[in-house]
Amino acid sequence: MTKQSNVKILFGANVKYHRNRLKISQEILAEKTNLHRNYIGEVERGLRNLSLENIYKISKALGVKMSDLLDFE
Amino acid sequence: MTKQSNVKILFGANVKYHRNRLKISQEILAEKTNLHRNYIGEVERGLRNLSLENIYKISKALGVKMSDLLDFE
Repeated sequence: MTKQSNVKILFGANVKYHRNRLKISQEILAEKTNLHRNYIGEVERGLRNLSLENIYKISKALGVKMSDLLDFE
Repeated sequence: MTKQSNVKILFGANVKYHRNRLKISQEILAEKTNLHRNYIGEVERGLRNLSLENIYKISKALGVKMSDLLDFE
């Protein structure tokens, strides 16, 4: 059962998985999303409680659906 | 194609759909999520760019997966 505290970590791991699958760097993902590189790093480490619209930006940049990044339940 | 501006509206419509499916009021959903009733109303009207953890709280209270609330793409 996913606990609330794990949601950021599981989401971040999904972002990292898809970024690596595409063989792009955090810098490139930052550019594609217009978000700061440090922010992308923090998202991947599960440190960010990011918003709906940033989830959307990241999913589009990774070429996946928003629900794909939340498929850990 | 979902546009970023529609994400909040589509998410809110999904919350309202599942809340009505369960036949519970916004007040009850607010109590179950420990979020304010006005906030729930604003989410359903697509006015809130809510966070990952609030998406989690609302999905658990509605008995659905987070990805179910984002399945509009």
